[in-house]
Amino acid sequence: MNKKITTLLFLSFLFVLPLFGQKAKYIFFMIGDGMGLNQVNLAEIYSAELAGRNGVFPLVFTQFPYATFGTSYSLSHGVTDSAAGGTALAVGKKTKNGVIGMDSAATVPYKSIAYAAKAKGMKVGIATSVSIDHATPASFYANRPDRNMYYEIGLDLIKSNFDFFAGAGFLKPNKTFDNKEAPSLFPQFEKAGYRIVKGYNAFQQVKQSQDKIILTNVDGADPSALKYAIDQKTEDLKLADITAAAIEALSTTNKGEGFFLMVEGGKIDWACHANDGSTTIHEVLDFNESVQLAFEFYKKHPEETLIIVTADHETGGLGIGSGSSRLNTKALEGQKISQGELSTRIRELRKNNPDASWEEVKNVLQQNLGLWATAKVTERDEKELFAAYERSFVKHENETEKSLYANDDKLASLSISVLNNISSLKWASGGHSAAYIPIYAIGAGADLFGHKMDNVDIPKKVAEAAGLEL
Amino acid sequence: MNKKITTLLFLSFLFVLPLFGQKAKYIFFMIGDGMGLNQVNLAEIYSAELAGRNGVFPLVFTQFPYATFGTSYSLSHGVTDSAAGGTALAVGKKTKNGVIGMDSAATVPYKSIAYAAKAKGMKVGIATSVSIDHATPASFYANRPDRNMYYEIGLDLIKSNFDFFAGAGFLKPNKTFDNKEAPSLFPQFEKAGYRIVKGYNAFQQVKQSQDKIILTNVDGADPSALKYAIDQKTEDLKLADITAAAIEALSTTNKGEGFFLMVEGGKIDWACHANDGSTTIHEVLDFNESVQLAFEFYKKHPEETLIIVTADHETGGLGIGSGSSRLNTKALEGQKISQGELSTRIRELRKNNPDASWEEVKNVLQQNLGLWATAKVTERDEKELFAAYERSFVKHENETEKSLYANDDKLASLSISVLNNISSLKWASGGHSAAYIPIYAIGAGADLFGHKMDNVDIPKKVAEAAGLEL
Repeated sequence: MNKKITTLLFLSFLFVLPLFGQKAKYIFFMIGDGMGLNQVNLAEIYSAELAGRNGVFPLVFTQFPYATFGTSYSLSHGVTDSAAGGTALAVGKKTKNGVIGMDSAATVPYKSIAYAAKAKGMKVGIATSVSIDHATPASFYANRPDRNMYYEIGLDLIKSNFDFFAGAGFLKPNKTFDNKEAPSLFPQFEKAGYRIVKGYNAFQQVKQSQDKIILTNVDGADPSALKYAIDQKTEDLKLADITAAAIEALSTTNKGEGFFLMVEGGKIDWACHANDGSTTIHEVLDFNESVQLAFEFYKKHPEETLIIVTADHETGGLGIGSGSSRLNTKALEGQKISQGELSTRIRELRKNNPDASWEEVKNVLQQNLGLWATAKVTERDEKELFAAYERSFVKHENETEKSLYANDDKLASLSISVLNNISSLKWASGGHSAAYIPIYAIGAGADLFGHKMDNVDIPKKVAEAAGLEL
Repeated sequence: MNKKITTLLFLSFLFVLPLFGQKAKYIFFMIGDGMGLNQVNLAEIYSAELAGRNGVFPLVFTQFPYATFGTSYSLSHGVTDSAAGGTALAVGKKTKNGVIGMDSAATVPYKSIAYAAKAKGMKVGIATSVSIDHATPASFYANRPDRNMYYEIGLDLIKSNFDFFAGAGFLKPNKTFDNKEAPSLFPQFEKAGYRIVKGYNAFQQVKQSQDKIILTNVDGADPSALKYAIDQKTEDLKLADITAAAIEALSTTNKGEGFFLMVEGGKIDWACHANDGSTTIHEVLDFNESVQLAFEFYKKHPEETLIIVTADHETGGLGIGSGSSRLNTKALEGQKISQGELSTRIRELRKNNPDASWEEVKNVLQQNLGLWATAKVTERDEKELFAAYERSFVKHENETEKSLYANDDKLASLSISVLNNISSLKWASGGHSAAYIPIYAIGAGADLFGHKMDNVDIPKKVAEAAGLEL
């Protein structure tokens, strides 16, 4: 070969190489459950209004160099559930609502991107703010015909042999899907080599260990979910703790082979099912803190890290604006606790003071939601609230408002609804919607996320970015 | 310089050149007024459901290689109007609601991207399905403190000296903003060298002309807007006609210097203000036909053409899904006319047959909306419709439902609302919302549109893609 051609080939190589870029070695796959575009938008609008200005105050991930959106319909329905939605994101194939990691006839198990990462020798972590056996995390490690097979999903955790799991806990560690008593999952996890760590303090003691880890909430805490961010106290386990633990564990155990970490902000969805705007915002901001941790990692390894932030579907059909050009999301600032926690307070009041006066109840609503203080209540709304008070405290009717993850006191849910209206929020329903999911990307392979896509394209592109076989 | 270095430099140049790409010479800036992400999503979901399947049936522009989204708030409000929204898209600066192409104190006129294109020697066209002096098109050529200064905006058209204008007509060609009689705009347009062409057939006669052109609807047709796509007959002027005329005129008159063409689908917004889902879908599909024409042009000049498809804001706070996982948008197929046209029919019926029976009125609703035929009406909805019938045809009350661009018969708007509910659509309000605007791009410089942005970034990036000074 003559010298000129050699030079040309060499230079071609030099110039073309960066176009292909480096493969992603550290993958963060972050899912805001129920986090539609408006949920993100609302969190940014609210933050700007709190800072006293119009516009938006940016979250970390909305500033990523790539942002697009995608469809989320399932194989069976125009509106997906979290099982089919999680499966699409995890395995790159659509299935019917309710199914975890299998085809819609539930005969063929599908391989998830997490298994593909494991097969390539990467460490794998699965983290969530709800239970570890819930639909979204389960989609990455389990293959079951029904999302409610919590015990059996727990068994699939063992099968996965993934390196790190974290979440609030397990929903049915002793009972099979057909409601039979069964050997507890926990000793089985330990037998399979997992160290079960309860709480973030306990994790601090073992973090240099090379063991596989299952990090849950402390005993006595709710195994179904972490507390809502808006309700959390200093001592409560947080999604950011879990994310920090995951990054630390996977950074310690990986010996240069990289890792895949899925992090779910699972209660954005729950707050939206309850049509609770302020709690939704705090869940999105809380999820953003976990993305911030991933972003700090990215800054140390920018060439080798890929962060994807997306959602499985939108929940609630959230609209921002109720007809006027003026927004008033800052009225949500007065809300100090979630609708669930407000229900508890009202129920406690009714128990301790069954004939509490309207003034006393108003006081609870003012202190916890800012009604009549930072949020101006119309005469009509007050009338409706008073009627609910009368039913509850005068006639002693026990009214509840059921949503997917809550069974809240009616006076509580009505008060939250009034506050949402004052704050120019509108909810289409208490269910999921067909709205697009947002997709944000930064790092190695992020340029694959520049166009509108389908939810099943996301893991395929992550696989492409990381050189994985999905 | 030795040979090796020369070779290296030459090859560097060869390889690096395509990274910078060619400047956009033919620019299509296409705006769906009020077209939020869900409006696009709905049109695709509906098309898929009509084809008997779940999922989406793609429009042209959703397949573009870049798609992202942006914020739309104005300087004064969390929710923009079309004046501040159009100004942001046209000049790259935010202003207060109501202002066209000026700062919020209305003292400084801003230069639009269309003027920047003109300054570079490109031909410029402004096309819309509403009146040429309406907020969105006006933002590209006028500078006025108030969007309602229709006469004065018309004067700015002359000042612009742009090459091609098209739309339904002019709202106030003889009356100033302070309501004084004034010399008609039309002779002034002609004096300034514009040929006024009425209707698409008339355009066919003059299309090889080198004159500047103002294409409007024929005499006697509504100057405020083209008919809704769902109501159009063969002989009616269509947005696709206008777009084809614009492309033809600008292709003929430009001598290699390229062109800038703004096309607005202006009545998506109007249909959404009326919360009329089926009419909205047909407006989006109609707008898509104009994008298709731009895309055909792009295919002939792929290296030199840039197409941007976006919106000024979302209208209606549209949600897709009402709580169930099943969508039923195909029920909208039974709607054959817009809410406005239905109002006309009901009013005519009342005039000609003031005591029409419920069966007769039901028949009108069945034939025109598919109620009781393709769309199953609940007992409760029928009761409500019957009550509206009674007020209108029995008690002869004259009820109207006012939205921004319509003053519709209440029975008509109630019927449309019932159909929308049946079709799993939810509207938050009859106004604009703060939802993100979608942004799609293909062609020269399209890669600038891969990340989330603000509405003011869009014209700046178009300027960057085309080498224009904004």
